[in-house]
Amino acid sequence: MQPPRLDPLPPGLVSLDAHQRHAEQWLGPDRLAFFTGAAADGLTDAENRAAWSRLQLAPRVLASMQDSHTRTPLLGQTLDWPLLLAPVAHQRLAHPDGEIATAFAAQVSQTGMVLSTLSNTPVEQVAAILQHEPALAPPLWFQLYLQPDRADTLALLRRAEATGCQALVLTVDAPVQGIRDAERRHPLQWPPEIRSAHLPAAVHQPGAGLCQGLASSAPTWDDVRWLLDQTALPLLLKGITHPDDARLAQTLGVAGLIVSNHGGRTLDTMPATATLLPRVRQAVGSGFPVLVDGGIRRGTDLFKALALGADAALLGRPQVFGLANAGARGVAHVLRLLRDEFEAAMLLCGCPHVASIQPSHLFIG
Amino acid sequence: MQPPRLDPLPPGLVSLDAHQRHAEQWLGPDRLAFFTGAAADGLTDAENRAAWSRLQLAPRVLASMQDSHTRTPLLGQTLDWPLLLAPVAHQRLAHPDGEIATAFAAQVSQTGMVLSTLSNTPVEQVAAILQHEPALAPPLWFQLYLQPDRADTLALLRRAEATGCQALVLTVDAPVQGIRDAERRHPLQWPPEIRSAHLPAAVHQPGAGLCQGLASSAPTWDDVRWLLDQTALPLLLKGITHPDDARLAQTLGVAGLIVSNHGGRTLDTMPATATLLPRVRQAVGSGFPVLVDGGIRRGTDLFKALALGADAALLGRPQVFGLANAGARGVAHVLRLLRDEFEAAMLLCGCPHVASIQPSHLFIG
Amino acid sequence: MQPPRLDPLPPGLVSLDAHQRHAEQWLGPDRLAFFTGAAADGLTDAENRAAWSRLQLAPRVLASMQDSHTRTPLLGQTLDWPLLLAPVAHQRLAHPDGEIATAFAAQVSQTGMVLSTLSNTPVEQVAAILQHEPALAPPLWFQLYLQPDRADTLALLRRAEATGCQALVLTVDAPVQGIRDAERRHPLQWPPEIRSAHLPAAVHQPGAGLCQGLASSAPTWDDVRWLLDQTALPLLLKGITHPDDARLAQTLGVAGLIVSNHGGRTLDTMPATATLLPRVRQAVGSGFPVLVDGGIRRGTDLFKALALGADAALLGRPQVFGLANAGARGVAHVLRLLRDEFEAAMLLCGCPHVASIQPSHLFIG
Amino acid sequence: MQPPRLDPLPPGLVSLDAHQRHAEQWLGPDRLAFFTGAAADGLTDAENRAAWSRLQLAPRVLASMQDSHTRTPLLGQTLDWPLLLAPVAHQRLAHPDGEIATAFAAQVSQTGMVLSTLSNTPVEQVAAILQHEPALAPPLWFQLYLQPDRADTLALLRRAEATGCQALVLTVDAPVQGIRDAERRHPLQWPPEIRSAHLPAAVHQPGAGLCQGLASSAPTWDDVRWLLDQTALPLLLKGITHPDDARLAQTLGVAGLIVSNHGGRTLDTMPATATLLPRVRQAVGSGFPVLVDGGIRRGTDLFKALALGADAALLGRPQVFGLANAGARGVAHVLRLLRDEFEAAMLLCGCPHVASIQPSHLFIG
Repeated sequence: MQPPRLDPLPPGLVSLDAHQRHAEQWLGPDRLAFFTGAAADGLTDAENRAAWSRLQLAPRVLASMQDSHTRTPLLGQTLDWPLLLAPVAHQRLAHPDGEIATAFAAQVSQTGMVLSTLSNTPVEQVAAILQHEPALAPPLWFQLYLQPDRADTLALLRRAEATGCQALVLTVDAPVQGIRDAERRHPLQWPPEIRSAHLPAAVHQPGAGLCQGLASSAPTWDDVRWLLDQTALPLLLKGITHPDDARLAQTLGVAGLIVSNHGGRTLDTMPATATLLPRVRQAVGSGFPVLVDGGIRRGTDLFKALALGADAALLGRPQVFGLANAGARGVAHVLRLLRDEFEAAMLLCGCPHVASIQPSHLFIG
Repeated sequence: MQPPRLDPLPPGLVSLDAHQRHAEQWLGPDRLAFFTGAAADGLTDAENRAAWSRLQLAPRVLASMQDSHTRTPLLGQTLDWPLLLAPVAHQRLAHPDGEIATAFAAQVSQTGMVLSTLSNTPVEQVAAILQHEPALAPPLWFQLYLQPDRADTLALLRRAEATGCQALVLTVDAPVQGIRDAERRHPLQWPPEIRSAHLPAAVHQPGAGLCQGLASSAPTWDDVRWLLDQTALPLLLKGITHPDDARLAQTLGVAGLIVSNHGGRTLDTMPATATLLPRVRQAVGSGFPVLVDGGIRRGTDLFKALALGADAALLGRPQVFGLANAGARGVAHVLRLLRDEFEAAMLLCGCPHVASIQPSHLFIG
Repeated sequence: MQPPRLDPLPPGLVSLDAHQRHAEQWLGPDRLAFFTGAAADGLTDAENRAAWSRLQLAPRVLASMQDSHTRTPLLGQTLDWPLLLAPVAHQRLAHPDGEIATAFAAQVSQTGMVLSTLSNTPVEQVAAILQHEPALAPPLWFQLYLQPDRADTLALLRRAEATGCQALVLTVDAPVQGIRDAERRHPLQWPPEIRSAHLPAAVHQPGAGLCQGLASSAPTWDDVRWLLDQTALPLLLKGITHPDDARLAQTLGVAGLIVSNHGGRTLDTMPATATLLPRVRQAVGSGFPVLVDGGIRRGTDLFKALALGADAALLGRPQVFGLANAGARGVAHVLRLLRDEFEAAMLLCGCPHVASIQPSHLFIG
Repeated sequence: MQPPRLDPLPPGLVSLDAHQRHAEQWLGPDRLAFFTGAAADGLTDAENRAAWSRLQLAPRVLASMQDSHTRTPLLGQTLDWPLLLAPVAHQRLAHPDGEIATAFAAQVSQTGMVLSTLSNTPVEQVAAILQHEPALAPPLWFQLYLQPDRADTLALLRRAEATGCQALVLTVDAPVQGIRDAERRHPLQWPPEIRSAHLPAAVHQPGAGLCQGLASSAPTWDDVRWLLDQTALPLLLKGITHPDDARLAQTLGVAGLIVSNHGGRTLDTMPATATLLPRVRQAVGSGFPVLVDGGIRRGTDLFKALALGADAALLGRPQVFGLANAGARGVAHVLRLLRDEFEAAMLLCGCPHVASIQPSHLFIG
């Protein structure tokens, strides 16, 4: 397999926001809408970001930082740092290298990756990149959308198992695509050469159909029970936000939860994930894996997610900006910026280890 | 009767707000002020909208959506979905087809309609359109302004009864027109060919007279008692916002209440209807019909209105934008957009029926 | 005495804010700064206005409005409506007719007037205008700044008594002029023909001297005691905001209080008067005259001031805008706009009389 | 020693903000970023300022102001007024006269000065200026960064002692430089002629290295204990914000604390110092020296800092703006503006002395 192109890094990309502003200038309105378009008025999207910013830190000074590091255990593995790349569909729309570039960046950055069902690159190819140096291979998880025909779902599952994916992530918050004004205003011009590697027939249809007929085929708790019976892989549910749903999932035997509102792209006016996270953590108790995504753009955001009880966070749109700006190098740069900021936050708050990060590091006004 | 013209739909109308922006560009400052001008500084108008947006949703995932639908009972009828077109005066100022276009849209959209006393189209003509297919006829209600001479009020009432209107809506919050800066700045250029179909002498006089002489002729609870004695039709009061007024109305025997601040067009700095609604519901108890209007622009707004205890909502200005943009097709498009969004909200919140929508679907911060 | 010129009214002045925007366009930066410049960052000035806007109304509908009117008693007189023109210095800087125009407007509008010590028109002349029709003469009060030499203060007092002023207003919140950035940036170009009618030597010196030497000559409670001994006229203190100061003033025997932060022109970051008013009312109990000024621009603001416990309000800057825009006719227009709005608010809230306006008409969120 | 140049003062500098706006126009993006660049999104930087503005004053009127003055005791000295110039590095980047100009301004303004370790002017020279008139010499304190080699730290300490510095200020909140986007975007063009007077090898390296290797060399409480053993000078810790850290520092025997978030330049989303100050004061009790910096731009801000329990405040960036705008005269002008405003605030609040300023002068909403 050929390594991805090493595009030069545009100047001035000093932050994830700078990556976003740069990508917005040339990605094109339809692809921009595809990757970043929020539901309806974009209130949840904006609130995701604002909620992390509003949380305030209560640092300690002059603590000993001997032997500090960012490693953390999760689902029996060790993350080099508590971040994973969120599943993002159709990455070749952002850069010709698509998921190949992202996987290379994940590998060199020692960052876990969750591959989307709607990847343009087969999971086998992504797995080969991540496992290039087995001793240093970061986690690879596979994101699953339940297919109308369970046999299709099973086929995806078996492929993920066969390639060594270490966990499954079932998305449960998108039985219907959100009302995305930007996508409707700028419908995606689908390039014929871009295909879904796992579901060749799948093409993105913005707003098509909406609820008509979808309601009766929406996945249910019964589907979760069925899926748990089909695999020994740990199964995480992505899109759990209600404490009662969290407890129910825990009871059914899922391996973990991802608190997510789909980046504000599905149901507008949901609360920010920073608001939802502590309630889900409270519902499932300590010791049960809970991750979070949505609006994380700064190292302090990641620090706060851990302080609120997350084991790790997922990063969505910014990986696309990095990918669009400079392919594999761009994604790696995004991860480097975020990790540097996260490490600085740990040091400035007096936390030598991930486990040192506690609720008490958040300022209660 | 001739069906209304089928104007082409301008491109880019992906939301009710997009309809508004489009209509604002060419409706003309005086007609725009007539239809949308708010009282004073427009704070209540803006707050109406903001309050729905601020409310946050607490969705459930993976619920069964088998046999889902949006039908709901109200005053002995069945609404196809819990929305009615609010009474809007002089619709021929928005489009030559006026209320004829609106009625056609209501009929094809299976949406109830409240006809204004100040209609440019006779109630008989509107009724004929709505009852075109009797089995599918959506509700038609008649909005009443008390006239200085009770005989004139009675004549309107009898016409509404004769044409099969199923309810009367008495507006109680506008004994004097609001202080509408925009209307004063851009007084309506009244076209001579536009007439009030029910009150031929009535011409819109922005700000004329204000309080002088109006105070002593303002309608009172005695007028409500009198009106209840004149008709067997259910009578709803529109503009009730105070719990004590709500209880008094209920005691007098009205059939229902519409929580409304007249779209922020009468008394500025009233609270948003989203704020007032739960207090009125609390005052009258469950089981008593309570509707709401003001600021509803998204399907999630309608969902929230039901979660706060409304049986249905009324839609005012957006029908005018649709009407102005593309006549009957425009109004139908506005209703389609809103209904699609509402259905998506139900699905994404895990509510198969209108009755499933509960206060618990609102996030308490 | 010659009546003031009747300037034509510029078009579009539909509100007090419209008057302001019009006046700002041509009054000149130095005179604008003199009349409207706020202290420091203008936070109190802005908050004065915002606080009235934030207060929400809880109207009642269908109340009887028979025999409604706006008259209200105060200090043994009857105000035709509960508003007085606040003392504003050097009104000839706004219009050649100065206080003469304002007095004519007050007389025709049946509105009380508080004449500033720093008037360009002698109190005798102003009194003659207001008392033109003795049976309809609105109240005339005289505002007093304590002079370094008590004899000068006494001379002012005796003149006010002799001309039939019915009350004295002692300003207590401005021992030093505020830090007014706008005035410093645009120092007043003092026209030689404009003189202080009562203190010929007084010339406005923006920022001159500040605290140096002023501290020791600042008026004290002893000066209030002395002043109370010198006159039988009711004495009001203007600039009382602290409950303890209010109680002390009441104990000393003053006739009333004016809750004021000098329009945000003296000490920035004081709370809005709408915030301070209920605390002062609470401190002195019901039945003791309390007035308020600062930020009142709408009839609903005046309504809210009464609902919070004020007996009446004073109107400052807007009279200057009216004066600048169209002399006497401009001031009268400003008063007409505000009174129409106030009467509409009373009607829409179901209050036939000033005494009907209660705290319960404010919405408690 | 030659006195600094007396640059003319640009017109319009009526406030500290006006100084900032003027300096921003010509200081150049890299030097502007060096002196004012905030961490990350600048939220703490903005909040520092906003928090002072939000605090509201509760003034008393008509109090006696006889014998009023602004003097206040601190660490056995008497401050002419409760403000010191905060330590600012490399002042020759703002003006050729650098710390010489600042020291002259401090001397003529009777204002204490804290000299940075990273001064371009030797402490001996600064001390000579401040002590020009020994009877009127304002305090001179020395700010210390712990050096990797304790011998270097000791050498700095001995020099400070030898020149008569009256206190040491150890900065404890910056073991790593913050993530400063502006500095990264506009890296400092270091002029070769500008040198660190005390650490010749030290050159500003924006973002260099970040956490790598820094964590293990970050100063700890052990270093504080060691430093306390090395000197008889009072030692203040700058950057204490947590009540527990405050109590620990007090227990160890430090002479005082400076509540600081490094002007929002180190860890973004820390609370404002106005928020942190009362908690630190509460932790250490009354009578223990506590100072504060961050966001003070108005005399009312300084007044509020004292009302919240600070003994004095430090002024950072504004001294740089004054310095950049007009050298020594500019710094002196900044101090004059702030002092005038502070004295006006004391007078308008009825406080004749610094000790009169109490928590009760803040309005509790």
